[in-house]
Amino acid sequence: MNGAQSLIRTLVDSGVEVCFANPGTSEMHFVAALDTVPEMRAVLGLFEGVVTGAADGYGRMAGAPAATLLHLGSGLGNGLANLHNARRARTPVVNVVGDHATYHKRYDAPLESDIETVARNVSGWYRSSARSADVAGDAAQAVAAALGPPGQVATLVLPADVSWSEPAAPAPPVPPAVRRIVPDAVVEAAAKALRSGEHAALLVGGTATLERGLVAASRVAQATGARLFGETFLTRLERGAGLPPLERLGYLAEFMQAQLAGARHLILVDAREPVSFFAYPGKPSHLVPEGCEVHVLATGGDDAVAALEHLADLVAGGEEPLRQEASRPEPPTGALTAEAVAQAVGALLPEGAIVSDEANTSGLWAPAATAGCPRHDWLTLTGGAIGQGLPLATGAAVACPDRPVLALEADGSAMYTLQALWTQAREGLDVTTVVFNNRSYAILNMELGRVGAEAGGPKALDMLDISRPDLDFVALAAGMGVPATRATTADELVEQLGRAFAEPGPHLIDAVLAP
Amino acid sequence: MNGAQSLIRTLVDSGVEVCFANPGTSEMHFVAALDTVPEMRAVLGLFEGVVTGAADGYGRMAGAPAATLLHLGSGLGNGLANLHNARRARTPVVNVVGDHATYHKRYDAPLESDIETVARNVSGWYRSSARSADVAGDAAQAVAAALGPPGQVATLVLPADVSWSEPAAPAPPVPPAVRRIVPDAVVEAAAKALRSGEHAALLVGGTATLERGLVAASRVAQATGARLFGETFLTRLERGAGLPPLERLGYLAEFMQAQLAGARHLILVDAREPVSFFAYPGKPSHLVPEGCEVHVLATGGDDAVAALEHLADLVAGGEEPLRQEASRPEPPTGALTAEAVAQAVGALLPEGAIVSDEANTSGLWAPAATAGCPRHDWLTLTGGAIGQGLPLATGAAVACPDRPVLALEADGSAMYTLQALWTQAREGLDVTTVVFNNRSYAILNMELGRVGAEAGGPKALDMLDISRPDLDFVALAAGMGVPATRATTADELVEQLGRAFAEPGPHLIDAVLAP
Repeated sequence: MNGAQSLIRTLVDSGVEVCFANPGTSEMHFVAALDTVPEMRAVLGLFEGVVTGAADGYGRMAGAPAATLLHLGSGLGNGLANLHNARRARTPVVNVVGDHATYHKRYDAPLESDIETVARNVSGWYRSSARSADVAGDAAQAVAAALGPPGQVATLVLPADVSWSEPAAPAPPVPPAVRRIVPDAVVEAAAKALRSGEHAALLVGGTATLERGLVAASRVAQATGARLFGETFLTRLERGAGLPPLERLGYLAEFMQAQLAGARHLILVDAREPVSFFAYPGKPSHLVPEGCEVHVLATGGDDAVAALEHLADLVAGGEEPLRQEASRPEPPTGALTAEAVAQAVGALLPEGAIVSDEANTSGLWAPAATAGCPRHDWLTLTGGAIGQGLPLATGAAVACPDRPVLALEADGSAMYTLQALWTQAREGLDVTTVVFNNRSYAILNMELGRVGAEAGGPKALDMLDISRPDLDFVALAAGMGVPATRATTADELVEQLGRAFAEPGPHLIDAVLAP
Repeated sequence: MNGAQSLIRTLVDSGVEVCFANPGTSEMHFVAALDTVPEMRAVLGLFEGVVTGAADGYGRMAGAPAATLLHLGSGLGNGLANLHNARRARTPVVNVVGDHATYHKRYDAPLESDIETVARNVSGWYRSSARSADVAGDAAQAVAAALGPPGQVATLVLPADVSWSEPAAPAPPVPPAVRRIVPDAVVEAAAKALRSGEHAALLVGGTATLERGLVAASRVAQATGARLFGETFLTRLERGAGLPPLERLGYLAEFMQAQLAGARHLILVDAREPVSFFAYPGKPSHLVPEGCEVHVLATGGDDAVAALEHLADLVAGGEEPLRQEASRPEPPTGALTAEAVAQAVGALLPEGAIVSDEANTSGLWAPAATAGCPRHDWLTLTGGAIGQGLPLATGAAVACPDRPVLALEADGSAMYTLQALWTQAREGLDVTTVVFNNRSYAILNMELGRVGAEAGGPKALDMLDISRPDLDFVALAAGMGVPATRATTADELVEQLGRAFAEPGPHLIDAVLAP
């Protein structure tokens, strides 16, 4: 058994059953070894950003990490933006980066570069395996590190000779660490704040936004009058009819300030102190209201759900959570606006759907329009590095083959990692992509003014305009084997969306928004 | 004047007149400032790998650096692979990376990451500007650093508040350093080796592969009987009828070994000791023949051309260089093989063309088929990070608007940075792209066997097969506004290629190769 075979066997034994891959020559022994471990599924991406974003989507939904397979420092670079998003999401990812043979590195061959310096940008754990006999043990530790808690990107560098050499043997799984129990005194301090009679807010994020955490948080809010918020960008939110609703903090600082206005206590539950996404001249970055005391109930490695349930026991007695009523908007008709797209989604979203939301400015209406839809999951752009949505949807669909996936995608963002469509076609994934085609970097048009930059001249505005030439997403999807249609009215969109949800396999709808 | 305005003015004053950009919010003041400096041309890319590859292509052809504009660490990550190629090409690039405002960084907002650790992978010079009053001076130094010699990637990080704050003023250009003159003793040692009567070889690369260097090198070879080789991957090679021909070392180690067999002296002229591109089990990495003495005539920062001319003065007297005779292959007919594509290119390549060669395995025949074509330039994959060809062609076309550009592109490689087509359409660039569509990562099929990996099973072979589904490059190009046709016979290719060369603006030909 060579190093590569021991590595893949160990990954499978440790619960890693999917590898999203874009290999090169130095990874050929890993590739050859795939056939020796039938339990490992290999999914090819045409670009590394697809591979890493899919690993993020998989990890968010599967509760177990996927592996990646990337080609040296340059392949890692191509995958870095979506690993950044995974880092912010605390998604477990076992990031395998092939390298030159150990003895070859000194010759500084063309693809040689300092992999570690790039990997450190996103990796909570990093190791380069030195010998074939070590790689299985290193892999088992990488899986445990990826799982955390909190989840993180664990990067294992695999030199080609470590991969091809013998001897090697599989290593047993490393038992993952358990989440820390939050001390009673911390929970009691939060309870005291909630009982103070002063205006309090609960901000939940991370692991606290699945059903159990939301139920406990909602009971606390119902019993104490505290306001309940979710972070702006959530790793995975369970929502829909029957679940406690969660209002997320707005993207823009002024919205966040309005939401938090008057709070004297802010209780953070696997969430971070609210800050502005970007800095703006003369505007604050740190958005905790003045005079508001911050209480950290649970942080990354803590058992945030148990802490919330403990808190509910203290302050909420037999209080029931608020539960979202079932409701759907009417299917829209007439002009195709971003709001109409949201209504169409709300009218048609299937039960059990997974929504990958990278609609940016166009997505403003979607959460409200789908709040009362049948139960579903909502995945967001945790790290702000655009080009996440389509790969994330791809990975989520691999993790959950029985659930429909919907990608709500801004046109500008779609063009970073559009190659994800090809993997969807190749794997027959049930992903429906709706591109909000407004032919601009709309968010930058807004931001150009907001940052206080002087009124944009023609050259500046040209940098935000992607209509010259127009992107034809129907042709682009067809070029990668994904059936696609164009909607120019709300009625067309409703018809096309209904058909896409009804048929298995990937579909794309180019929703050309009314100006 | 704010920092951004002073920065752009200083770049222009220092000779940087093009900025390839993919901006985000933190770059909005840079974008707004574009209109205050009319001499700066801004070219938008839909993906950062397009931006950085275009800057490489521009720098190789213009003799002056382009600037980039990238969005924080994630944008830099997306652009890293083509910056790696630029690093290996020693192309001057002023790599401008926007960052959060200096006071905002401590809040660890979602897009915050360690930019420096990523930038160090590719940057010979790195600085983060601390104040608006400093940024112009930093920019002038960045340009000088980018120019070297040798050329390099100089990364200037531009925090948002440094960009938007006043006061700031343009800085004068920093005089670039001059190339070092190679000491007489070094040239004389090389001359002695050449006169020894022992088998000698001259290996040229870097700055030595334009006409003047080639003429001197060829005179030396003609006079002394030394063999003349070029490095496998050259930044820019001037070639064609009337110029001294240059045989490049093969990609595969065994070819390189055959070419260099018997050499007792190897004279390196801005070239590196030959090494295998990848390591292979049981095969050598270092390919200087045993018993061969290596003489470094000139290295990166040296005036390699002057050293070659000095050497020619010592050993070649009035010897004339070898000059390539004009010749073209007949236009091919019948089955469309990779060789037929090469013949078609050889039959039709326009005078003054710039060829961006990322055809990989399919490109094997192209250099020979075009050797006697009218004078042209040939740009290659210097760093081995695929996804270079289309962006490089884009940047070369911006640098040389009066010259036709031809991209010879492998299908797998094309899919990394296909968004370059959109920039070609937007800017009306005269680029003809021929995609060698063999529906596989053909080089990996070869490498899977060569690395000694056991015969690939179905899962392994699936990782090298990109025919499921087939990529339709005609549709993909049309989706980005580039007119495209499909050729399935050599006759069709000849007709389509002739038309593409005759018409201005971008064209793509999907050359579906016979199996």
